[in-house]
Amino acid sequence: MNLNKNYQEDFDKISKSDLKTRLARLSRICENLEIPVLVMIDGFESSGKGYVINDLTEELNPKYCNVEVFEKDEEYDKKYPFTKRFFESIPKKGHIKVFDRSFYYKLFDDINVNDKDLENRIQSLKKVEKMLYDDQTIIIKLFLNVSEDEQKKRIKELENSKQKSFYLTQSDKDQNKNYKEYQKHFENILEKTNFDFSPWTIIDSNNLKKASKGALYQMLEELTIGLERVSTQRIDSKNEERSYSNPIKVIENLDLNKSISDKEYDEKKDKLEKEIKDILFQFYERGISTVLAFEGVDAAGKDGAIERLIKKVDPRLYTVHAISAPSKEENEYNYLWRFYNKLPEDGYTGIFSRSWYGRVMVERVEGFASTNEWARAYDEILEFEKQIAEHGTLILKFFVVIDKDTQYQRFMDRENNPDKNYKITDEDWRNRDKWNSYIDAMDEMLYRTNVDYAPWIIVEGNQKHYARIKVMEEFLSRAKAHLKEYDKNNNK
Amino acid sequence: MNLNKNYQEDFDKISKSDLKTRLARLSRICENLEIPVLVMIDGFESSGKGYVINDLTEELNPKYCNVEVFEKDEEYDKKYPFTKRFFESIPKKGHIKVFDRSFYYKLFDDINVNDKDLENRIQSLKKVEKMLYDDQTIIIKLFLNVSEDEQKKRIKELENSKQKSFYLTQSDKDQNKNYKEYQKHFENILEKTNFDFSPWTIIDSNNLKKASKGALYQMLEELTIGLERVSTQRIDSKNEERSYSNPIKVIENLDLNKSISDKEYDEKKDKLEKEIKDILFQFYERGISTVLAFEGVDAAGKDGAIERLIKKVDPRLYTVHAISAPSKEENEYNYLWRFYNKLPEDGYTGIFSRSWYGRVMVERVEGFASTNEWARAYDEILEFEKQIAEHGTLILKFFVVIDKDTQYQRFMDRENNPDKNYKITDEDWRNRDKWNSYIDAMDEMLYRTNVDYAPWIIVEGNQKHYARIKVMEEFLSRAKAHLKEYDKNNNK
Repeated sequence: MNLNKNYQEDFDKISKSDLKTRLARLSRICENLEIPVLVMIDGFESSGKGYVINDLTEELNPKYCNVEVFEKDEEYDKKYPFTKRFFESIPKKGHIKVFDRSFYYKLFDDINVNDKDLENRIQSLKKVEKMLYDDQTIIIKLFLNVSEDEQKKRIKELENSKQKSFYLTQSDKDQNKNYKEYQKHFENILEKTNFDFSPWTIIDSNNLKKASKGALYQMLEELTIGLERVSTQRIDSKNEERSYSNPIKVIENLDLNKSISDKEYDEKKDKLEKEIKDILFQFYERGISTVLAFEGVDAAGKDGAIERLIKKVDPRLYTVHAISAPSKEENEYNYLWRFYNKLPEDGYTGIFSRSWYGRVMVERVEGFASTNEWARAYDEILEFEKQIAEHGTLILKFFVVIDKDTQYQRFMDRENNPDKNYKITDEDWRNRDKWNSYIDAMDEMLYRTNVDYAPWIIVEGNQKHYARIKVMEEFLSRAKAHLKEYDKNNNK
Repeated sequence: MNLNKNYQEDFDKISKSDLKTRLARLSRICENLEIPVLVMIDGFESSGKGYVINDLTEELNPKYCNVEVFEKDEEYDKKYPFTKRFFESIPKKGHIKVFDRSFYYKLFDDINVNDKDLENRIQSLKKVEKMLYDDQTIIIKLFLNVSEDEQKKRIKELENSKQKSFYLTQSDKDQNKNYKEYQKHFENILEKTNFDFSPWTIIDSNNLKKASKGALYQMLEELTIGLERVSTQRIDSKNEERSYSNPIKVIENLDLNKSISDKEYDEKKDKLEKEIKDILFQFYERGISTVLAFEGVDAAGKDGAIERLIKKVDPRLYTVHAISAPSKEENEYNYLWRFYNKLPEDGYTGIFSRSWYGRVMVERVEGFASTNEWARAYDEILEFEKQIAEHGTLILKFFVVIDKDTQYQRFMDRENNPDKNYKITDEDWRNRDKWNSYIDAMDEMLYRTNVDYAPWIIVEGNQKHYARIKVMEEFLSRAKAHLKEYDKNNNK
């Protein structure tokens, strides 16, 4: 090596392409460590989001980096809880997802939003961001800022360009016309959504080249900070101990042997089935959606109750989701992702045989989720359900309970071949070992997640007929109340 | 947030303190991911190594970062294989070790080194660096370059300073007097040790502030590159499959029942013990060190053979190291670290009951080392032994072999309580399961690591008396040959 040659890089002049190389390097570390990265690029209209995003993603591996454009889609947004669209688009583990516009784009657009709605939505989105942050996502939020004059100049240029004029929308012009108002509105939202765990960085975008260099630079910084944070989090979660605290025993005090006669069952069944069919059609007419979750141990009678409930309902109006262990694909996302995906459109019913409560039951008891993960899941689940309820959806949760003798008996009944009975005994013993852990987890779940907007309905299940009628009656009475409330609010 | 305020960092002017903050951040990621980092700062005398090292380490957590100064210590260096001192100082997992001077400092200093010695040492150090690199260490090598004039100026300043003149050594002046020659010598070594897996970066150190900023910057770059590389390596090693290939069956063809009569044993034993005592004293007089490794299954008779071998030797002249699973502390280093630590000083004997060969036996069979790790260990071990042999040490490896019936018998004999015999039967069955895997591993070990400078001596061990006499006779004849060779070379 020649000591008279200068081998040193001139760090005073980092080029954009150099920053891109570094960004690619960091992105590969995130890929290797299976860390999801969510980048939101929002800002004024004509502030150069596309230009910046091109630079950010140019050197990233397209297998692990996608851009998601959030254009206005009021039709879609109206039909679902407003967080669904974002949540469906969160990055997988090891992937970078760049949002062209952010979680907040509708709020940014809606200059006339009232304070209460604004506050509500911000609180919801804050909780979603916090959940992703806790779930080891690196979140980067950039806001591109242009001056009134520069914006006007760019709009003019677009208007005069043959190829590019289609990029121009009414929003651009509206914003420029009311620049000062929008500026104040943006500042307000930025202030309120500048969370400790996911702050905004405002990028001066009057000079596009400088802006995209600034964005690259900021992303490099935040990725490194995020890498440190997530790797620390992982060590902390390795070291944590599991602890159980169960304030109230619900299940052991239930009278599980409640029953009805065959005669009563036959009398009630047909009438209830018909009424349920009718009310779900009325829901459909009004565009009210329904979410029903069923939980309970193996052989508790969840599926039988679901079958009975929807016996006469038009099958085009509902979907039953049998939830088991997440697939490999599903496991690459936050645990709620696969449920957000399955939320019913307005007017329809989604029924979940087992649900998101797996997080605080099987995943807790079997150790698939760390203590931190399941302990914070109670709040995360309530927030998820709150978003559903606030959209106007009827959400009910049925918990079907049997005792362990009944479960044993049902296992035996299921087994046709008497020579194989000994196998069931083996399994039963294993179940019995963890039975109490499951009861503890269920008690805590019932205690912590029984809320007005998404109540638990406990169904004593030793007698199947009793359980099925109770599910139908409870559903019907609550659906009626929901309908009445809806009609009152909509002056029907 | 006020959109008229400038939130953007000015990336054109990164300050030194900013670089330090980033370095600290990356160091915490390395800490979290348990990646060892080895930084070597070498260069001309008076090139500002101290200044640069101060800046590099200022913001690093001293719990995870140490500086190791390699001053000349010819006394120490003469007594041991020349790589020992470096290897003892390698960083732990998650720690940063900064070497003030490098692996190469003696070569840099020795301007009159002959080509063959230079080439030999470079090849050894290259293999050590490659081993650390393969073992997921991030290696950063910086060379500080000053001009002849600047060096002269700094030497003058030191001479004239009351507080700092003690920093000045004869080397500084010598180097400056023969600057051109040293420059050529350095260029030659830098060229030859500029390996793909651990290249040098030459830092222009005529301006100290710029140099230390350059060093910070370079370290940031290489840490990021290293993080990517190591995290990829970890994924690759997770995905790899284990494969066995055993070219030659040695063990199954041995006659393990070789024996001698009690009379022969008694006759030979005393004479051998005395001769061994004498020859190890002659070794001591001449400053020749000895390394003996003993391997073999449980109850093969390793420790009995060792006891007999050193029965009459002055206990101040030897140390027996019983090697079991590495401690938590030892596990934080490369697997050879704990053996480098235990190498005997000139004139002394180090005896290892079990040794570094655990890497390719127990760690291989039980899966404690990945296929990549144990597969490359053969070469690493040979390099380790070559360094020992080239220092003039006598190195011998004894492999004591018994068959599984004999092992079973010895286990039974060891067990005093006949009521507990059933326990040994259980263990024996488990051993028997893996017995063949161990034999495969041992065959491959014998085949791959039997070299002239560190030969394996196979000891048929079913009869203890035969085994002990064979160990003593083999040791004695090889020690005599070694002594003869030594005396010939030293004209005694």
